[in-house]
Amino acid sequence: MMAVLARSVLVTGSNRGIGLELVRQLAASPWPPHHIFATCRHPEGPRGKVSVDTVNVPSIQGAVRAVDSHLKDQGLNLLINNAGVSSHATLHSLDSQEMLSVFATNVVGTLQEFLPLLEKAAKGAGKEGLSCSRAAVINVSTKLGSIGLCLGVLQAPMYPYRASKAAQNMVTRCLAVELQEKGILCAAIHPGWVKTDMGTEEVLGCAPLMVEHSVRGILTVLASLSQDTSGTFLDWEGNSLPW
Amino acid sequence: MMAVLARSVLVTGSNRGIGLELVRQLAASPWPPHHIFATCRHPEGPRGKVSVDTVNVPSIQGAVRAVDSHLKDQGLNLLINNAGVSSHATLHSLDSQEMLSVFATNVVGTLQEFLPLLEKAAKGAGKEGLSCSRAAVINVSTKLGSIGLCLGVLQAPMYPYRASKAAQNMVTRCLAVELQEKGILCAAIHPGWVKTDMGTEEVLGCAPLMVEHSVRGILTVLASLSQDTSGTFLDWEGNSLPW
Ligand SMILES: NC(=O)c1ccc[n+]([C@@H]2O[C@H](COP(=O)([O-])OP(=O)(O)OC[C@H]3O[C@@H](n4cnc5c(N)ncnc54)[C@H](OP(=O)(O)O)[C@@H]3O)[C@@H](O)[C@H]2O)c1
Ligand SMILES: NC(=O)c1ccc[n+]([C@@H]2O[C@H](COP(=O)([O-])OP(=O)(O)OC[C@H]3O[C@@H](n4cnc5c(N)ncnc54)[C@H](OP(=O)(O)O)[C@@H]3O)[C@@H](O)[C@H]2O)c1
Repeated sequence: MMAVLARSVLVTGSNRGIGLELVRQLAASPWPPHHIFATCRHPEGPRGKVSVDTVNVPSIQGAVRAVDSHLKDQGLNLLINNAGVSSHATLHSLDSQEMLSVFATNVVGTLQEFLPLLEKAAKGAGKEGLSCSRAAVINVSTKLGSIGLCLGVLQAPMYPYRASKAAQNMVTRCLAVELQEKGILCAAIHPGWVKTDMGTEEVLGCAPLMVEHSVRGILTVLASLSQDTSGTFLDWEGNSLPW
Repeated sequence: MMAVLARSVLVTGSNRGIGLELVRQLAASPWPPHHIFATCRHPEGPRGKVSVDTVNVPSIQGAVRAVDSHLKDQGLNLLINNAGVSSHATLHSLDSQEMLSVFATNVVGTLQEFLPLLEKAAKGAGKEGLSCSRAAVINVSTKLGSIGLCLGVLQAPMYPYRASKAAQNMVTRCLAVELQEKGILCAAIHPGWVKTDMGTEEVLGCAPLMVEHSVRGILTVLASLSQDTSGTFLDWEGNSLPW
């Protein structure tokens, strides 16, 4: 298995589920990152070190300062925006507040604040081309956010979740275009249907994938990303998904 | 030119731009709708009759009651969600409040409240199949909301606008799936680059299309929509666009 050889990695929502397993597998890899920032919104929990609540701008800015002072001049190589909330609202039960709060968490999140640290890493890495070891933003998306597929609407309407992830995919693709010349890669990853808290509340049938398996796949895909795959939407096995 | 033969039509944001011209051309058509609800958020303006502020749920609910009492048992045939705001925020200048307010206007809008009136129209129309004369929701979208095209990001970043329109496209497609069995058509339309207030602030070069021309195209496309084109994303000339 190819490994992600990033000097520093930050993962949001890493107190449980896919985020926690990402941190675990990164730390256990043969050449682990020097710095893993396992962030979560309530850092008094078992694993959190840096607090990032993706709907709280001061909390994000505080994290940027903390990370910057740890990393000194080296910048952050890899930002994994994993924190997310789902929503089971149907067309009839959804309300505008729910649409907006899901959107705030899943799309707005850490869109801007870490860019200076990523730019620093891209400049200082002494590398050409795009890769997760130089500088990258990975947005954890979902197949339910594919407008083209538009899977299982009748069984799982989930309008706020789907709309937010489609919007997040748009942001991923715009970021990829905009950040390419700065040496920063950007991609969207669908982790599969994973047995996490969120995965087991899915109404599309019980999630089949073990989180270890999904995350092993994700990290292999991340290690393979390059100029050619920046701006794409891939699943945990590296298959390309339609927008 | 084929005409939209709907008994009743409601247009949001109809005090200027594309919305105003939609109302004008519908009223001037050889077989005009019996009821045209030209809604806007400040109905003291020159043309508005019914007030719909798409970020104000009580205002939408008030409009539903007003429309329902006008239409009696016939329901609403055609809802055109045209009201929208753009946003020129770049990646660096955008803030989360702006992301959310653009999203509230462009996506949340009149998503649910008119559905009972559309269902009533679909049932009462004495027609089979899907069409804008039976019952339809048309969402005015934009090519800038196509994730697949991802046009001109460097010249016109417009993250909040693009993200909101991608989310709106997702909603359009989900609605099409969900409402099909109720006899309600749903589609997304890109009006072209149109010389309206919004169009002339576009940073992708001066909008070339006259609003009359765009709206003539839109109404021709609406008249042609059927079961086969429900859930699609078309431009004002009927060309299909990628999500
Ligand atoms: N599981 C699946 O089958 C599946 C499928 C497709 C995509 N995904 C995506 O994968 C990602 C991780 O999902 P998961 O399955 O691991 O879900 P999960 O077990 O429910 O975990 C979600 C994580 O996100 C965090 N989070 C939520 N809101 C936050 C906020 N405002 N600020 C910071 N952290 C926040 C949670 O923290 P708290 O503990 O504080 O709530 C938790 O750590 C999500 O983006 C999800 O959309 C999952
Ligand atoms: N012009 C183009 O080139 C172009 C291209 C692609 C897509 N579009 C789309 O076409 C639609 C119409 O645009 P336009 O060019 O006609 O723009 P416009 O001239 O700026 O008119 C926008 C309309 O939307 C209304 N509106 C905004 N926020 C509202 C709210 N909260 N509640 C109710 N109404 C609201 C405005 O009302 P107020 O007068 O009260 O502000 C106005 O009537 C939009 O959805 C836009 O995204 C336009």
